[in-house]
Amino acid sequence: MPVNRRITLAARPVGHPQESDFALDEVDVGSRAAGEVLVGVLWASVDPYQRGRMSEARSYAPSLQLGDVITSQSVGRVVETNDPRFSVGDLVVGQLGWQEYAIARAGTLRRVPPELDPASLALHAVGMTGLTAYFGLFDVGEPRPGDTVVVSCAAGAVGQIVGQLAKLAGCRAVGIAGGPEKARDLTELYGYDVSIDYKSDDVAEALRHERVDVYFDNVGGEISQAVHRRVNIGARIVICGQVSQYNAERPEPTVHPGLLIMFRARMEGFLVVDYAHRYDEAARRLARWVASGEIRWREHVTAGLENAPQAFIGMLNGDNRGKALVKVAERTE
Amino acid sequence: MPVNRRITLAARPVGHPQESDFALDEVDVGSRAAGEVLVGVLWASVDPYQRGRMSEARSYAPSLQLGDVITSQSVGRVVETNDPRFSVGDLVVGQLGWQEYAIARAGTLRRVPPELDPASLALHAVGMTGLTAYFGLFDVGEPRPGDTVVVSCAAGAVGQIVGQLAKLAGCRAVGIAGGPEKARDLTELYGYDVSIDYKSDDVAEALRHERVDVYFDNVGGEISQAVHRRVNIGARIVICGQVSQYNAERPEPTVHPGLLIMFRARMEGFLVVDYAHRYDEAARRLARWVASGEIRWREHVTAGLENAPQAFIGMLNGDNRGKALVKVAERTE
Repeated sequence: MPVNRRITLAARPVGHPQESDFALDEVDVGSRAAGEVLVGVLWASVDPYQRGRMSEARSYAPSLQLGDVITSQSVGRVVETNDPRFSVGDLVVGQLGWQEYAIARAGTLRRVPPELDPASLALHAVGMTGLTAYFGLFDVGEPRPGDTVVVSCAAGAVGQIVGQLAKLAGCRAVGIAGGPEKARDLTELYGYDVSIDYKSDDVAEALRHERVDVYFDNVGGEISQAVHRRVNIGARIVICGQVSQYNAERPEPTVHPGLLIMFRARMEGFLVVDYAHRYDEAARRLARWVASGEIRWREHVTAGLENAPQAFIGMLNGDNRGKALVKVAERTE
Repeated sequence: MPVNRRITLAARPVGHPQESDFALDEVDVGSRAAGEVLVGVLWASVDPYQRGRMSEARSYAPSLQLGDVITSQSVGRVVETNDPRFSVGDLVVGQLGWQEYAIARAGTLRRVPPELDPASLALHAVGMTGLTAYFGLFDVGEPRPGDTVVVSCAAGAVGQIVGQLAKLAGCRAVGIAGGPEKARDLTELYGYDVSIDYKSDDVAEALRHERVDVYFDNVGGEISQAVHRRVNIGARIVICGQVSQYNAERPEPTVHPGLLIMFRARMEGFLVVDYAHRYDEAARRLARWVASGEIRWREHVTAGLENAPQAFIGMLNGDNRGKALVKVAERTE
């Protein structure tokens, strides 16, 4: 029976997470019951929402307990199976966590199509962050051709897809990101019409001539306040994330509801899991657009499970250029 | 030619309006062009939105200039007419202002049905505040039978109608108002299931067992923050007004967008004027419900045009019990 290396929660982060908030341990893999599958993890996802799970504050999902494996979406290959739906060697994606091996109920796994190359796409453009972009923009934001769509964290895992979906929907896409490399990716790689680098540009000034019909908000805080001042009548403000607030012990309120009256605007939060019954619809389209080159993407890969905490801390600081991933292992079959 | 007494803006209020911010003057009525109608005002409306017009801050409608007549909806009787659509003696409602006589283009006036008794109903339950309640609750709030609808300023002109419309829609209605008389009106007159007096009750504690599906917000500020903490998954927060903020020189932000993610909730502002093409639909229904007693109402009448500023100041302080109106004159024909 192989040994399983795992990253667990050693302490609840206070403010910015530290490497000491995580521990690496080794345990037996454990045994499988009927209907369970043993998966060898290849890629583990690193995402801002994980910060919320590490806190005890009331949220939409239960908190991690100290000693728990850090939850994440991961892609892996089936090593042993007690369920007829999967065969050894199949590529799968699921909530497998930051660990080398995971035992999962077969019903919680989705198959990664063999033509998806690299398979890590199942963790971003054709996975959770792509699905988040798809449902958040199309179902909550309701873009119409000619609309101006502004996206914060526009070079991030979700934002890079939102801008390209906005272009597919006939919209003008304005992206906000931090630093010259990401700002260049916005227009050169992801097809944004306008790129704003919030580290060097004055966001309010850069938006001076824009009228924002859809604001896809990943960040919150001051950047979002600058965007709010440029919304158009009937604007839709999609609240996907508030990454500027995740390390705050006591986030400050940032929105004046009076603004929503003045512009007859709507601000709406969503969770991608509420669209689970439509994942197939979206994943098929995203896979097609990725295959055709209509959706482009960038990964930021950290090698080695032991470096996952560092990748996570860097991602919250905005150090990653593209979707943050940890490469856990190679397994060709 | 009669002399026209008017209330004008003498100074822009700073914080809470003072009587010295208003002036009473007397001018000639002026002459009518073709298509214009001279109206003798009977009732003038007193509403929170007027505070915004007195300020220079950017808003959805132009600011009043110093010396302008205070804008308001008013009900009056046609005294002279240069338009075939109206006859002398007709009851009309329109944006006639705080004055004894108004010259209006005929196309801007709506007829008050003679069976509407009292005619002042055209300023509230069957007028702007009733229409505001109707479109705000039904079109923005989208209540479903069984939903819990919470209303702030629930005994106010809009709030008293919202609660009754919520009951007609099969919902549980929870009203928040200030003071024992208004709190009693909520359950005894307007049919709310639960009454909360924010001056004597702890709002958060009173809402402890509620799960709020629709919050119809007229007030903003701390009361609304207490309601936000009790929203249900998929809640709709209708932003109708923010009366707690209208006298603030620099309103503070009050909303955490993260809340909207947690509850997949929507916060949306609206203006009743955007529903002008559907006023007839709503006014007919409201008039029927008022006639049948399914909608009950209370007016708070101040006698004399000269007392309109005092009525306005009192209304912003919450001194009125029911819709604030000024009785300008009696005219039986």
